[in-house]
Amino acid sequence: MKNKEILEMGERAVKASRELALLSSRKKNTILEGMAEELEARRHEIQTANRRDVEEAERAGLSKAMVDRLVLSDARFDAMVKGIHDVIALKDPVGDVLSSWVRPNGLEIRKVRVPIGVVAIIYESRPNVTVDAAVLCFKSSNATILRGGKEAVFSNRALALALQEGGEKKGLPKDAVQLVQTTNRAAVKDLVQLDGIVDLVMPRGGESLIRAVTEQATVPVIKHYKGICHIFVDKDADLERAVDIVDNAKTQRPGVCNAVETVLVHKEIAETFLPMMANRLIGKNVVIRGDSETRKHIPEAEAATDADWDTEYLDLILSVKVVDSVGAATEHINTHGSKHSDAILSENESAQKKFLQEVDSSTVYVNASTRFTDGNEFGLGAEIGISTDKLHARGPMGLEELTTYKYHVLGTGQCR
Amino acid sequence: MKNKEILEMGERAVKASRELALLSSRKKNTILEGMAEELEARRHEIQTANRRDVEEAERAGLSKAMVDRLVLSDARFDAMVKGIHDVIALKDPVGDVLSSWVRPNGLEIRKVRVPIGVVAIIYESRPNVTVDAAVLCFKSSNATILRGGKEAVFSNRALALALQEGGEKKGLPKDAVQLVQTTNRAAVKDLVQLDGIVDLVMPRGGESLIRAVTEQATVPVIKHYKGICHIFVDKDADLERAVDIVDNAKTQRPGVCNAVETVLVHKEIAETFLPMMANRLIGKNVVIRGDSETRKHIPEAEAATDADWDTEYLDLILSVKVVDSVGAATEHINTHGSKHSDAILSENESAQKKFLQEVDSSTVYVNASTRFTDGNEFGLGAEIGISTDKLHARGPMGLEELTTYKYHVLGTGQCR
Repeated sequence: MKNKEILEMGERAVKASRELALLSSRKKNTILEGMAEELEARRHEIQTANRRDVEEAERAGLSKAMVDRLVLSDARFDAMVKGIHDVIALKDPVGDVLSSWVRPNGLEIRKVRVPIGVVAIIYESRPNVTVDAAVLCFKSSNATILRGGKEAVFSNRALALALQEGGEKKGLPKDAVQLVQTTNRAAVKDLVQLDGIVDLVMPRGGESLIRAVTEQATVPVIKHYKGICHIFVDKDADLERAVDIVDNAKTQRPGVCNAVETVLVHKEIAETFLPMMANRLIGKNVVIRGDSETRKHIPEAEAATDADWDTEYLDLILSVKVVDSVGAATEHINTHGSKHSDAILSENESAQKKFLQEVDSSTVYVNASTRFTDGNEFGLGAEIGISTDKLHARGPMGLEELTTYKYHVLGTGQCR
Repeated sequence: MKNKEILEMGERAVKASRELALLSSRKKNTILEGMAEELEARRHEIQTANRRDVEEAERAGLSKAMVDRLVLSDARFDAMVKGIHDVIALKDPVGDVLSSWVRPNGLEIRKVRVPIGVVAIIYESRPNVTVDAAVLCFKSSNATILRGGKEAVFSNRALALALQEGGEKKGLPKDAVQLVQTTNRAAVKDLVQLDGIVDLVMPRGGESLIRAVTEQATVPVIKHYKGICHIFVDKDADLERAVDIVDNAKTQRPGVCNAVETVLVHKEIAETFLPMMANRLIGKNVVIRGDSETRKHIPEAEAATDADWDTEYLDLILSVKVVDSVGAATEHINTHGSKHSDAILSENESAQKKFLQEVDSSTVYVNASTRFTDGNEFGLGAEIGISTDKLHARGPMGLEELTTYKYHVLGTGQCR
């Protein structure tokens, strides 16, 4: 027996989604302005609610990193409101004609971009996701059901209420943005089993959240999974530049999914390149874990274990392995990677081509840092996540990836 | 504990998929020729295996319709082989650059069409699906794991073997097309839970098969669900033409998913239109089940029950309802339809526009029969199914819908 509250929430979202599909871009932008204004107007109230979450978290003994993620500082609040203005500036993809053609019988077929319908977002501690996700879903005319972490419950309620009330003043359809109020875990299961009601679930958070959602869901899920990203330094790489790129991909922001975790080095340049790389990275406090070949050239390296090749460190740790060929590199990546972002550094065109073709990841780089896998860096304007799945959307997901299509078929009486 | 056989089959498919991704279109077509030749060469052997299935089915007392679906007659065999030649003629979508752009920092981003990877097809009695599905998946460079119904086991084995051996003579990678040999039901569960191995499952068959797969699957599923298709005859319809279209959509082939099941009639033309329509349909042995308004104008109509509005008859039965407006029609369709194919018959542009926008189905028609929702009729050349889901693919799925994309990002040393 389904939770009645969740089922009714879903049915209200479906109803709202029908109204959302009919809103003009201008109207949607006015509503977004209303949301941004209301957030500003309630800044004090929201930050007070947020402090309550933070205090509870501290009392419960959550880690410093966890507590930090919860905090809605002034800077984060500003960024959240600015995010709404950024989304206002984005082109609305709904209604675009993706292609059209006329059949010999005169039928005109148009493939038209439409909203997905009802999108559920299940996320953990960062309360700003409440706003970021809701506004992207709204701009693409989807109804949203938000389910945040219990540690951010007061913040999320205050934020959702501001979006709803600020939006409704400007014509936001009722129930277009809903927040699951209960922190009961069973509610998640009910939500992800609303077949025919919820069209897409996006879990955002750690591995255990994503696994739980995937296992329970009967509605489609797009996963934003871990990033075990690789850089392969080929024998024909520009080695000075390779040091810069590895350094950037590892140290510029080690805690994110597009940071590099493993560097693969072609054996022919291992002797020259590895000490150059080690010199730079060790100077930046990076711990290197290498295979036996690597350790011949980097005496400071720890010994890598099998588990290292499958680990997303999110930290100043780098695993390093020497490989025999481009093929050995792509094989390693396809075996141990997470289909996220992987790069080859090489001046050799056939090596580049082979790598681009064989590596089965959402984003494959030639001579650049893996850190560019990001909606803003790609020019999408904003992102709701980075899909490591292969269906519907891969890589950074912006507004277009929050839409689907339908066919309009225009006839003059055709029968078959 | 997973079935070891299924797990290893999945791992072999992944390996094959890497080789498939590198095959040229020319090479793939040569392999398809080899498959077609081998089928022809083994026609007698395959039909002998098929007769064994048919005899078993008759002995087991399967319905006449079920037995008929099993039979690989000469005509069906010819159509199956011709299907391979049709697929050879189709343009290979793999490698197409869908879009590309250059970022201010000089990074060139290319969105490139690539195969999905490993596709599992779970189907019921028709043995020709073994060939149709395998060749479409192969032409789009996907590895296939086929799991047919137990009633067609001998036919499916003979067909799969012909495809494998005929293909391998011309260079088909080993394990590119695999058939699950066991008819054990648990094997399906294991197959649809091969996360990270199977990229997509497509169940093809009745509602209970699709439900079972959806509930068990942890890998993505695209459903080809039932078709409860509607035609709304607006007050501004050309009534003569409307009779032709309803007749075509109901009677030309009633047993298929894009046949119409419910006709909604605007109240202002009910008195004129309903007798015209009834006259034609009853002359063709169609049973009409109407609401009370309908029965005022069609005395022969049976009384429709609530269940009728949610029923896919697949038969010469039509439910008919009188509605007050376009809005009432779209509301009925969005409530009772199956997001498949629905039509408005009207000369009024604003009614057409409202209907196109509001009906949430994969294919929405203006002034044409719903029977055109089909890969061939759409000009896709062939179809592996008609998706009633909203993600990745909607409506008829051809070769393009069996692909996904990845990003190639080409740099000259960019760091973030």
